[in-house]
Amino acid sequence: MPNIRHALSVKREDDFAAWYQEVISAAEMAEESGVRGCMVIRPWGYGIWERIQRLLDDRIKATGHENCYFPIFIPLSNFEREADHVEGFAKEMAVVTHHRLIADGEGGLIPDPAAKLEEPLVVRPTSETIIGDAMARWIQSWRDLPLKVNQWANVVRWEMRTRMFLRTSEFLWQEGHTAHVGEAEAKEHTLRMLEVYRACAEEDLALPVVAGEKPENERFPGAVETWSIEAMMQDGKALQAGTSHYLGTNFSKAAGIKYQDREGAEQFCHTTSWGVSTRMIGGIIMTHGDDDGLRVPPRLAPHQVVILPMLRDKPEDQALIDYCEELRAQLVQQSALGEPVRVLLDTKPGKAAAKRWDWVRKGAPVIIEVGGRDMENGAVSLLRRDDLWNMDNGKPNFQTPAREDAASGMGMMLENIQHTIFTQAQARRDANIVHDIDTMDGLRAFYTAKTKFPGWVEVQWAKPTGAALEKVVEQLKDLKLTIRNVPMDGSEVNGPCIFTGEPAVERIYVAKAY
Amino acid sequence: MPNIRHALSVKREDDFAAWYQEVISAAEMAEESGVRGCMVIRPWGYGIWERIQRLLDDRIKATGHENCYFPIFIPLSNFEREADHVEGFAKEMAVVTHHRLIADGEGGLIPDPAAKLEEPLVVRPTSETIIGDAMARWIQSWRDLPLKVNQWANVVRWEMRTRMFLRTSEFLWQEGHTAHVGEAEAKEHTLRMLEVYRACAEEDLALPVVAGEKPENERFPGAVETWSIEAMMQDGKALQAGTSHYLGTNFSKAAGIKYQDREGAEQFCHTTSWGVSTRMIGGIIMTHGDDDGLRVPPRLAPHQVVILPMLRDKPEDQALIDYCEELRAQLVQQSALGEPVRVLLDTKPGKAAAKRWDWVRKGAPVIIEVGGRDMENGAVSLLRRDDLWNMDNGKPNFQTPAREDAASGMGMMLENIQHTIFTQAQARRDANIVHDIDTMDGLRAFYTAKTKFPGWVEVQWAKPTGAALEKVVEQLKDLKLTIRNVPMDGSEVNGPCIFTGEPAVERIYVAKAY
Repeated sequence: MPNIRHALSVKREDDFAAWYQEVISAAEMAEESGVRGCMVIRPWGYGIWERIQRLLDDRIKATGHENCYFPIFIPLSNFEREADHVEGFAKEMAVVTHHRLIADGEGGLIPDPAAKLEEPLVVRPTSETIIGDAMARWIQSWRDLPLKVNQWANVVRWEMRTRMFLRTSEFLWQEGHTAHVGEAEAKEHTLRMLEVYRACAEEDLALPVVAGEKPENERFPGAVETWSIEAMMQDGKALQAGTSHYLGTNFSKAAGIKYQDREGAEQFCHTTSWGVSTRMIGGIIMTHGDDDGLRVPPRLAPHQVVILPMLRDKPEDQALIDYCEELRAQLVQQSALGEPVRVLLDTKPGKAAAKRWDWVRKGAPVIIEVGGRDMENGAVSLLRRDDLWNMDNGKPNFQTPAREDAASGMGMMLENIQHTIFTQAQARRDANIVHDIDTMDGLRAFYTAKTKFPGWVEVQWAKPTGAALEKVVEQLKDLKLTIRNVPMDGSEVNGPCIFTGEPAVERIYVAKAY
Repeated sequence: MPNIRHALSVKREDDFAAWYQEVISAAEMAEESGVRGCMVIRPWGYGIWERIQRLLDDRIKATGHENCYFPIFIPLSNFEREADHVEGFAKEMAVVTHHRLIADGEGGLIPDPAAKLEEPLVVRPTSETIIGDAMARWIQSWRDLPLKVNQWANVVRWEMRTRMFLRTSEFLWQEGHTAHVGEAEAKEHTLRMLEVYRACAEEDLALPVVAGEKPENERFPGAVETWSIEAMMQDGKALQAGTSHYLGTNFSKAAGIKYQDREGAEQFCHTTSWGVSTRMIGGIIMTHGDDDGLRVPPRLAPHQVVILPMLRDKPEDQALIDYCEELRAQLVQQSALGEPVRVLLDTKPGKAAAKRWDWVRKGAPVIIEVGGRDMENGAVSLLRRDDLWNMDNGKPNFQTPAREDAASGMGMMLENIQHTIFTQAQARRDANIVHDIDTMDGLRAFYTAKTKFPGWVEVQWAKPTGAALEKVVEQLKDLKLTIRNVPMDGSEVNGPCIFTGEPAVERIYVAKAY
């Protein structure tokens, strides 16, 4: 193996958490804002979020949803209505108590005591209760059902220990909310939206995920069923990348969401909710990043191809720029993954080599450098981010196709990169799931022996509930493990429950998690 | 004139404010949320906002901006830094003082006294101060300039008297923020973005606007210059539909936004900011609405064409739906205003006539009804929302083109509707500006005599400042008038200032305003 000088100072292998922070900083994805727990999402990070929004929004609309917008403030009393929901959420929330600032007489400002709100307002941690109020107004008869809305919004859940994208006090998300005539239709819709998330994760984000039901102890507060998609990060930990909840009639009864059925009788609606957030960007980083920075899946890349003319602040520069501009014009005529190719011709001041490494760290899928010699040859120097190094000599693995070939082959190249990074992630995930542990001692031994990037273990269990489940959760907690989910396509069971020894009824994934 | 039965219960002529509320309700644009000053934006209203976002975002990106996201919370101390900015904004803001709720022991919840924030956080009323902090981190040298960012976000300015879309405590907007090397470049950019707003208002929203500079007393807190686009509503009042500010070095000095120039000397950046909000939707309603509801400009309509098959809950319905589906398939192949035609085939349960009037009230540009007889004739019944009534008989003005002709002509028809409603608004605006008043007595007499929908008056003035300007503002206030702006393309002055008698230096618009 040649000696490669990677573009980051920290390697995944050496300190995964520090590596994660360095990618976010080096790729200019986000930064601390100075406001406790809140991040600033910088253009490259936000551009990726805009791509996710566009692609997921199309998928959500294709299932018959319309977007709405609901207030950021929720009256405190809304949280008092649904008991389980209070219990789950009534802890860490931002509370607005005043509506005015006044001078404190010493050059500063204070909340005006005369402007104290009669009822405090909570900055929404999620919108079930306030959307429930609207549904109660909008729904009268079975003809109004199903009602399918979605909202793109910011939400706040106060966090003491934050990590950018993964756990921040404010984050961006979409939350879908639906009301249905009955249990069967609502449950079916819960799974339909889970499938939308699976497809978005795998096809758009190139994140292989396991779709399945969360155990009872991991349910959303107030939900009857909670389903999730779980992805494996390169350190072997699980990341819950999206959830879909069947809420039964719990929120309907709390908010009075009723309809008149075809026979004229009054019924409570069955509701669902489901959301994914900027957390997915953390998943993209920890799945696709390498020791040179981020690798953005082409479907998400704000710029799929970055062209860097090697400018020298001389009159000859103009010919080089013209040559690159022609390439740009050819590329935007191409189509990749069903959309026109997105190209940036980067002529900002700066040294070409420094700019190359900036784009490597940001993870642009294809970087094309053009110098005087390339132009003379009618060619370009092309670097695929998923094939960065020449393993023979440890240098960047430049290809030098003719300019026209680079342009005409770009659609296929980008599709190939999208496929490659998904396949790599899938192979790594599959290689890091252990299937042959069937005792608690075995589980303990495995996670005690393999402390570095141990991956997931698939075990069989008897699906205990209540106190029995709590005991299992405690046992796992000692090993810093959690139950991720019960995969939808799990293979058959054929032995005892790893926790209780009773006959197992299903398979579950156990893992350390973010 | 025939006797027309309009689709709304209130006419503009009779009670413009009540008419406005009825349009919002009847077109299902928005509704009160039950949270003080906050509205719920319903799918049709939000769909229009999504169209505005898409079109304006493209325009903003075309001027070299990238989107970012900044925290919703701003530390209180940020507002203490820039004196004018505090003065202007330190009044009505939502203040977060606690980060946890706890049970009050009586079944309710209260803010946890143990979780009081050391420094209160303000829900952003605008983001100059927090984006200034980021710019100070991001900018080191002239090479980093200009820095051009934009954010789509919710903001909160506590309001006591609210009116949906026009003045709400929470509203949605975009705010652009830029930093430049010098005054000339920053001022030029301020005007470039004003021009983007003018073009978006006139070409996308079909709102004729006057672009110009606000007088000193109407400047944004902390700005050196504030420019606006002003639109005339059908009641003759002005609506400020967007503003662009040159901030000089005021915010740079407060936040330390500095750069090293080419000679190595440290300089403060010159910054700009500019924003438009969901208020523009209020402007669309009050400009294009009529006594039958809203008329959505085709460029903004989430559905430009709504197809209503006249279903009878009988087996024959399927043939009708197939016939309409073929029409839909033909229409989406058409292009209007540079985009594929957006079509809804509405097969929801409900009576055809009731559904027609729902879409009239919502203002879908073209409504196509298809009954059995239309199908037999290979035709459709088509209603243009901008030409709703047959003035001979007072009935809906249906056209009955062949289905193929309706499809092939739709691009041109939609473009014609877009043009028509802009031209109507422009003609009405121009007809309601008075140019020949040159004394304060004349102004008083005009607005005293014409109390109903009086429109604007263009007057000449000497551009007084300070106390002299305050006196003018007070005089106008007695008549409930304000100075709107100094139009960029105002004609030459040729007489005395209407307020002071001194030689006039420019023309201004005076009006009642929202």
